[in-house]
Amino acid sequence: MAGGAGDTKKVLDMDTGSQKVLNMDTLNPCIINMEYSVRGPLVIRAREMQKELKEGKKFPFPYVIRCNIGDCHAMEQSYINFIRQVVASCTYPPLMDSAGFPPDVVAKAKRILEGCGGGSIGAYSDSSGIEIIRKDAAAYIKRRDGGIPANPDTIMLSSGASDGIKSILKLLKQGDGERKTGVMIPIPQYPLYSATLAEYNTMQIGYYLDEETNWSMHVSELKRAITEARAVCNPRAICVLNPGNPTGSVLTRQNIEDIVKFAHDEKLVILADEVYQDNIYAPDREFHSFKKVISEMGGEYAKQELASFHSVSKGYMGECGYRGGYCEYVNFHPEVVAMLRKSLTAKLCPSVSGQVAMDCVVGHPQPGDASYESWLKEKNAVLGTLKEKAKMTVEKLNSLPGIKCNIVQGAMYAFPRLFLPEKAIAKAKAEGKAADFMYAWELLEQKGLCVVPGSGFGQKEGTYHFRMTILPPPAKLEEFLRRLKDFHLEFMERYK
Amino acid sequence: MAGGAGDTKKVLDMDTGSQKVLNMDTLNPCIINMEYSVRGPLVIRAREMQKELKEGKKFPFPYVIRCNIGDCHAMEQSYINFIRQVVASCTYPPLMDSAGFPPDVVAKAKRILEGCGGGSIGAYSDSSGIEIIRKDAAAYIKRRDGGIPANPDTIMLSSGASDGIKSILKLLKQGDGERKTGVMIPIPQYPLYSATLAEYNTMQIGYYLDEETNWSMHVSELKRAITEARAVCNPRAICVLNPGNPTGSVLTRQNIEDIVKFAHDEKLVILADEVYQDNIYAPDREFHSFKKVISEMGGEYAKQELASFHSVSKGYMGECGYRGGYCEYVNFHPEVVAMLRKSLTAKLCPSVSGQVAMDCVVGHPQPGDASYESWLKEKNAVLGTLKEKAKMTVEKLNSLPGIKCNIVQGAMYAFPRLFLPEKAIAKAKAEGKAADFMYAWELLEQKGLCVVPGSGFGQKEGTYHFRMTILPPPAKLEEFLRRLKDFHLEFMERYK
Repeated sequence: MAGGAGDTKKVLDMDTGSQKVLNMDTLNPCIINMEYSVRGPLVIRAREMQKELKEGKKFPFPYVIRCNIGDCHAMEQSYINFIRQVVASCTYPPLMDSAGFPPDVVAKAKRILEGCGGGSIGAYSDSSGIEIIRKDAAAYIKRRDGGIPANPDTIMLSSGASDGIKSILKLLKQGDGERKTGVMIPIPQYPLYSATLAEYNTMQIGYYLDEETNWSMHVSELKRAITEARAVCNPRAICVLNPGNPTGSVLTRQNIEDIVKFAHDEKLVILADEVYQDNIYAPDREFHSFKKVISEMGGEYAKQELASFHSVSKGYMGECGYRGGYCEYVNFHPEVVAMLRKSLTAKLCPSVSGQVAMDCVVGHPQPGDASYESWLKEKNAVLGTLKEKAKMTVEKLNSLPGIKCNIVQGAMYAFPRLFLPEKAIAKAKAEGKAADFMYAWELLEQKGLCVVPGSGFGQKEGTYHFRMTILPPPAKLEEFLRRLKDFHLEFMERYK
Repeated sequence: MAGGAGDTKKVLDMDTGSQKVLNMDTLNPCIINMEYSVRGPLVIRAREMQKELKEGKKFPFPYVIRCNIGDCHAMEQSYINFIRQVVASCTYPPLMDSAGFPPDVVAKAKRILEGCGGGSIGAYSDSSGIEIIRKDAAAYIKRRDGGIPANPDTIMLSSGASDGIKSILKLLKQGDGERKTGVMIPIPQYPLYSATLAEYNTMQIGYYLDEETNWSMHVSELKRAITEARAVCNPRAICVLNPGNPTGSVLTRQNIEDIVKFAHDEKLVILADEVYQDNIYAPDREFHSFKKVISEMGGEYAKQELASFHSVSKGYMGECGYRGGYCEYVNFHPEVVAMLRKSLTAKLCPSVSGQVAMDCVVGHPQPGDASYESWLKEKNAVLGTLKEKAKMTVEKLNSLPGIKCNIVQGAMYAFPRLFLPEKAIAKAKAEGKAADFMYAWELLEQKGLCVVPGSGFGQKEGTYHFRMTILPPPAKLEEFLRRLKDFHLEFMERYK
């Protein structure tokens, strides 16, 4: 059904002469070219299989295990009671009297509703979000960064981090005459970036992360990439994902400083995707925000233009369905902030219940609050389990021949390298497929495991990977790894 | 702060030499050019005044009355209990046992949660929305249209109607070589359309609505507009708002048929903004959906490509903050639907709580359900009050000299014409302002009333209008009209 641009003739055939107004010829070629592998054909097939299983069709497995997307609650992660109690109170205010919720829940809900038009979350908010929530976000950032202040007026709430990222990328001029604008993105990267850049007709400047050193960033590679790119486009921004997706790596402080210096020297805006800031598992790693690092570097570096994104979808809360997020714009010119603000007005506002969820994250319970103990316990339970699963996943993957997986230092993904037999690569090539796509497809068909092939994220020519989440509950994740082992050994044997 | 493109020099000055990466030269000119009057400078000033009033500053009025935007709950309209009880139950499922909600509330919440990943509204849904909600929307459309079937697979949930409208406009190719793509929009129109077309670099083809005949659409005017446009662009779509915003008009069945014939003959997709389908007040008008009309017209017309938008923000529910909406794509080519679906994946999904609110609208209680009586009473109360306010507003406006307002047949707005004295027009011109902007600005400064000048919606050269909502509660709306009368009489006297 999702045919290419060459299928236009079919439109004519099907409609026997009365051509449709909208067809592949009249569609935006940027949309036609865009790909978003995290929700691509494997995921569509996995969903079909789930339906077929439900309808009684027989497969060589009892159910599908989907590790294709960072969708925490879909993988049985529980919600944080504090968040949902506050959202429920804002939704149906009589609950503040009747539901027996803790007093800090009620107090927070009341405070948020006071910031809403007519005291209702059914009213539009400011396009950049409810003012007190932006203030809470500023206070959160200040606490997180050891006292470095944040300005609520340059924090804009968004429909998840994706929406914030799209808002800033949309703001860039597409090019000057023949020269397109370019944006540096890591390889491998989260496909939101490649999809959005394709949509906005902006050039992707890929820089390779170094798999040998746990996916770290080397300035020499950044320089190579930008030097080549400057021949054909005007680079304006560098996207950095920290902790990394799909890599699971966490940048060192030194690495961040190097990137800042590079961005400063090359006159690039830094787009820092920091949605996994709570998801750090490696004992030798901690999260350093770009905001803190540029402030502490001082001088010219402290003036670096930086957009930092956060979300309610990840961390310990995993509230993907709420589409809550924010972006802090640091050191942007006031005119640019004004244009950004204007561009947001046509979207009216982000979902107010998503904003409420975001407020529960940035304004979480503090010691002494009625909900603090239970909140902390729930939070630690989620993060503690993720930490164990990160370790277990890497260990089990590395026990298999032909698989090598870096340490999952943070985020929610493992991105193991597959050393596939030549025969398998040749067969895939003959079928016009990427070899890791073929691997992932067979894995799904034979074992009911849904992962995303590395080709969907970008990888060094001649290397093969897949991304899997570490989100299933421990027993299910073990089952995943058992089924994977069986498949992998058989696959390697078959093509050896 | 929001300077024009000519202010770029300031960037250099301010930063004493270290030019920012992002400035008016490196921004997307489409974003710079975009305007969205419903949230423009008047609204910003109104908000400032509200703050200043709160801080004790004296004005010649005790509070601001904002009639600039269709934000029902902000104007004290109550929520519908059924909707909020369902959303609260989905938010915090223990409430299904403990909150004493009616059984149909609990049943609906359970059914929705069964359609959610992991049974949680915190999981991502399909990019086009939760399947059972799309099915409920299809059933709703079928009921509404007297049994004409709707296909859940071509219904896509969105973040409010705006998001759906942007999704389809984004899909259009911007142009072929030098010829841009054109989209027909009414004048006056809701500025989402002009803003979005500006953002996507698509040409606006304005067609004038006829104020003399209660803002009806004349095919002769449509033909004039498209004939002129074909000289410079490729028209692909026509946007129709029914009931109309800002006009408050409701199209007759005959008028809709004429538009369908026109769109068919001219090979245009119809984008039908039908978000006010529940808001009909004139006794001689009823809502006819474009879907029903094309189906009943039959033959070639029944194959007309049509996108119809709906929303939870308007109607009797007014849940703007939830950002819930859907679009039904009728007769689109499957390849186009597939591309549309793909383009949605990079946005992940619309807010799930917004989807739940939408489900409560398309799947509202039916006779015999526990919530039915109270739901109907609440719905009728909102719509009954709106009907009275529509009548009162028009009567009081027409009692003023120099104001002529058409009947508000539907939607939530009055769009009166101002016959301003020559002296006022000359003064505004001398100040480089639109005369109705000057009128609205003085109205705000002197009386604390916030409306949107007609120039923000488009109007015939040499005519002046403003748009006001009819949303304040009756006593406040009367006060609004009293303050307006005082201002208007003084203004007309001053400039006579």
